[in-house]
Amino acid sequence: MKPLVSVIKIGGNIIENEKELARFLNLFTQLKGPKILVHGGGKKATAMAEKMGIKTTMVQGRRITDKKNLEVAVMTYGGLVNKTIVASLQALKCNAIGLSGADAGIIQAVKRPVEEVDFGFVGDIVYVHTQSLLTFLRSGLVPVFCALSHDGQGQLLNTNADTIASELAIALSKEYTTTLYYCFEKPGVLADIGNDNSVIPHITKETYFGLLKDHAIADGMLPKLENCFYALDHSVHKVCVGNMDMLLPKSTIYTTLTL
Amino acid sequence: MKPLVSVIKIGGNIIENEKELARFLNLFTQLKGPKILVHGGGKKATAMAEKMGIKTTMVQGRRITDKKNLEVAVMTYGGLVNKTIVASLQALKCNAIGLSGADAGIIQAVKRPVEEVDFGFVGDIVYVHTQSLLTFLRSGLVPVFCALSHDGQGQLLNTNADTIASELAIALSKEYTTTLYYCFEKPGVLADIGNDNSVIPHITKETYFGLLKDHAIADGMLPKLENCFYALDHSVHKVCVGNMDMLLPKSTIYTTLTL
Repeated sequence: MKPLVSVIKIGGNIIENEKELARFLNLFTQLKGPKILVHGGGKKATAMAEKMGIKTTMVQGRRITDKKNLEVAVMTYGGLVNKTIVASLQALKCNAIGLSGADAGIIQAVKRPVEEVDFGFVGDIVYVHTQSLLTFLRSGLVPVFCALSHDGQGQLLNTNADTIASELAIALSKEYTTTLYYCFEKPGVLADIGNDNSVIPHITKETYFGLLKDHAIADGMLPKLENCFYALDHSVHKVCVGNMDMLLPKSTIYTTLTL
Repeated sequence: MKPLVSVIKIGGNIIENEKELARFLNLFTQLKGPKILVHGGGKKATAMAEKMGIKTTMVQGRRITDKKNLEVAVMTYGGLVNKTIVASLQALKCNAIGLSGADAGIIQAVKRPVEEVDFGFVGDIVYVHTQSLLTFLRSGLVPVFCALSHDGQGQLLNTNADTIASELAIALSKEYTTTLYYCFEKPGVLADIGNDNSVIPHITKETYFGLLKDHAIADGMLPKLENCFYALDHSVHKVCVGNMDMLLPKSTIYTTLTL
């Protein structure tokens, strides 16, 4: 029987709200067993770029990471957000260690190839080196990852936090029984996007295809669910989607995904 | 016989110059055995604060770290400078891991007590927790520290990089024979401040007091040397002061300090 590990990804809605973040970090600290936190940066980087007079270019609704915007991302995600979370967790006696994907060479990526759009310094993950990560987990450390990877040639790369979480969970599944939590503002995958009481408690691959056929999944939710099933297809044991209350020991209102 | 470890501190003159930094990182990578890099941020934080319209208050020639300036320090030192160095070292096959003093709870400090001057969020180191640091060194990782500590209550603190280097070296001296390198723009401690060819090759505590009596040490050098002898008094084996050439295998032009 493999030991358990939890990989929890939090989104901008938690990062941007001091009280929400404090509440989340308390819940996270109480979660038993080895665990990893992955955070995005939310709108903080955009706000920071504005303050510094750096323009953000959007193409097809997606942000382009030029050199200056990458610097802002490294400062904001890798610096301010990451170290603030680490210091807060340390105060809760959770032995956190803040990491980018470059640290200990853990998350190797390639700069996204330029096709129709040049997204700039955006990384697609090619490999997760687990050796140091396993050392950290086994020595009781709690890794806190920001959404940055590197290409092994000296270049840092902006990388989707959902993908970082799923790739870490996949890589750890050789040694651990892994649960991946996507923690966002909704209580789970909703049958009716306008109704928070319509959480679908359990989705399997079979029911997922049914939901797709019925167009019952909101657009924004689709890439997240694709990520979930990709993780499940690659040995992750279970994926949970919901708001931070799903970390409460007795919580039942969230969506569990299994194969 | 204890194993050897090197703790190398680099200053702003290296951080601020891309070519100098690249050259230093090459030399650093070639240095054999377990090693730690400590970097300040130089003028990058001041420049960043200016860009963001944040004022820097100076009192008695020293910067006051208010909340906004601390944020800039965390972004610049803990984010941009630290992660850029880590990515560069990884490209050189040096398995670097970027750390603030909050990460793994390694460097605990207290906010400097307010006496004549309130320096703001500045930390005086009270304890170095070596457990995780030893794990990193023993597993072949190369820690890269920025000049930040934490108070264990959730507060990050700006901390002098020279002091971080000496306290790390002291803490490691229980398990290692430690050499502490202070790498700056001068080739060593100079007998004649205007003459780079006047490097004093060796200073002991005895000759140090002689130099002090003769007022032969420039003002800016005094706190650095005090730091050196403090480290030597607390079990650090040897301190070397000079420019980055002192890391060259055959280098002889730098100042070695021993008790």
